[in-house]
Amino acid sequence: MNREDRRNRVLVKEIGEFGLIDRIAAMLSHHCPGVIKGIGDDVAVLDTSGPEYLLATCDSQVEGVHFMRDAITPYQLGRRVAAINVSDIAASGGDPRWALVSLAIPGEMEVGYIEELYRGLGDEMALAGASIAGGNLSRMKSVIVLDCTLLGVVAPERLVLRSTARVGDAVVLTGSPGESRAGLELIRRPDLALSASTRQRLIESHLCPRPRLAEGRLLARSGLVTAMIDVSDGVIGDLLHICKASGTGADVDSGGVSISRELGEAALAAGADCLEWALSGGEDYELIFTAPPEAVASLKQMLLDQTGTTCSQIGTITAGTGVDIRFAEGTRKVSAVKGFDHFGESKG
Amino acid sequence: MNREDRRNRVLVKEIGEFGLIDRIAAMLSHHCPGVIKGIGDDVAVLDTSGPEYLLATCDSQVEGVHFMRDAITPYQLGRRVAAINVSDIAASGGDPRWALVSLAIPGEMEVGYIEELYRGLGDEMALAGASIAGGNLSRMKSVIVLDCTLLGVVAPERLVLRSTARVGDAVVLTGSPGESRAGLELIRRPDLALSASTRQRLIESHLCPRPRLAEGRLLARSGLVTAMIDVSDGVIGDLLHICKASGTGADVDSGGVSISRELGEAALAAGADCLEWALSGGEDYELIFTAPPEAVASLKQMLLDQTGTTCSQIGTITAGTGVDIRFAEGTRKVSAVKGFDHFGESKG
Repeated sequence: MNREDRRNRVLVKEIGEFGLIDRIAAMLSHHCPGVIKGIGDDVAVLDTSGPEYLLATCDSQVEGVHFMRDAITPYQLGRRVAAINVSDIAASGGDPRWALVSLAIPGEMEVGYIEELYRGLGDEMALAGASIAGGNLSRMKSVIVLDCTLLGVVAPERLVLRSTARVGDAVVLTGSPGESRAGLELIRRPDLALSASTRQRLIESHLCPRPRLAEGRLLARSGLVTAMIDVSDGVIGDLLHICKASGTGADVDSGGVSISRELGEAALAAGADCLEWALSGGEDYELIFTAPPEAVASLKQMLLDQTGTTCSQIGTITAGTGVDIRFAEGTRKVSAVKGFDHFGESKG
Repeated sequence: MNREDRRNRVLVKEIGEFGLIDRIAAMLSHHCPGVIKGIGDDVAVLDTSGPEYLLATCDSQVEGVHFMRDAITPYQLGRRVAAINVSDIAASGGDPRWALVSLAIPGEMEVGYIEELYRGLGDEMALAGASIAGGNLSRMKSVIVLDCTLLGVVAPERLVLRSTARVGDAVVLTGSPGESRAGLELIRRPDLALSASTRQRLIESHLCPRPRLAEGRLLARSGLVTAMIDVSDGVIGDLLHICKASGTGADVDSGGVSISRELGEAALAAGADCLEWALSGGEDYELIFTAPPEAVASLKQMLLDQTGTTCSQIGTITAGTGVDIRFAEGTRKVSAVKGFDHFGESKG
């Protein structure tokens, strides 16, 4: 087998999601008219010659991979896929507008289930100021594959990318990450001893994430934020995306990460490390943004006043590579995105 | 069980794709800002406040439903899904611009396969003047689900819809339909006695349909076409879509439908009715358009001169409902879309 053959016969799971994206992006890297940002970002930024840039993003929910049918209602599933897409637009500083929903389902499903799914999609889109404008229906053998494309708009001067962090910038995180990971654990292990309210909150965080749309919009409009991303692959994973795209490194002080009481209780009950869940759990849909250190206090105050959302500085952008995380017991360097590897582990 | 319960517990396969679309469209029918045409059409027409309308369409290819992995190369599969989307934009009179590709695949797949698939997608998009601007990758248990969203643009005065046919208009069809259906038969029955060149042409028609992009653009720019649709659900099925959306009926003279020599030979070898394949086969991606009868000769000549494509008048729009098809042996009325029912029959 020659080198080219070996390269082609590598399995997807060996190079993972991000390795595969890198190879596809390299293959299709030629300049394309009207494409401001293309493959490799969560959101494509397109120039339609209108007053605003068009944003386009898509995300899927595959039964047995991203969800188990008996652990989520169809209404929640619809809201979930909508929220995940809204979160990507939020992290660009944009406004969601129109969604296309592509659904592959077994013919044996009840129509009421599908209607509930669309009701959830429609409600979450309406919350974000968007509507369902079209889509596609296909038959599928036994599982549900739900794919949502969301279009949004952003004024060119308000667009925030992941690739524009600057050395010396503060790294700031909204909310308390890790609750989605804890919720997933509680779905998997219903026997864990926890109060009903804690259990419910954490499972809700996993099933129905709340995208930080108002926060993203305010941050983008402040003109002070240099880069932004939403937390889908985990705090460290998504910070690594910022670093890789910006050509920087980052130092993170794990002590700066906000840990909610509920997360602490769940991790204790599960015998897990709450900081591990908070830093690499993923699917929190919080925002990570970078900004000059002197702007952080006013940005935090602005978010608190206008949305009630707290945020914490968790680190600094550096001239290095990768993310250095300071723990009480020492420093750990992370160079490659771990987070949730879509080709590694099963969920639900 | 009360009436509402019964309505919810109906199975998708009992009401079919179009029944389900009707129910979803009714549920989400409120007015949405910026949506010129929404759910129920192949293409969403959106107003971004730019000089042109934005067009958005999506289509899927599900392994085991729309294709069998051993009957199509990954390059062909990529081209196929791209072509199907381009065809929808073509039928609106628009220009394809940007695609988002959402791919769900097993981790055990070879990376070379995925790259070939994207190469096919990229090549077909490039032929149409479009590029791949983003997408998503997910893990899937054992089959491939390929979902493509294509964005395009159209000047508002050139937009052609399915809903604007007028009583008395001629119904015109490009090319010779049914070859895709014949190609599917040849894939299923490799033993059928046919020449290699006929076999190859028909299978190619099925695997790699050629969207009528230049034709759609010319027809839209003529200003003479009143309604248009591409043939995915079969000639009669898609004409029914025009009729239903326009509030009209149609008379079709089956003798006006062009039957290619290759289709005739394949139907004979398969013991099938070539006219049945031509009228209800589906997935031909020819265009059906309506226009005042006095405009037909000049439109046919224009297409022939500028694209080499022939077309035939196959009928007339009437004040009735449904489609009345005249055969040598009598007339048949079709009131509901049959075509290929995505929840009925398996393909490949």
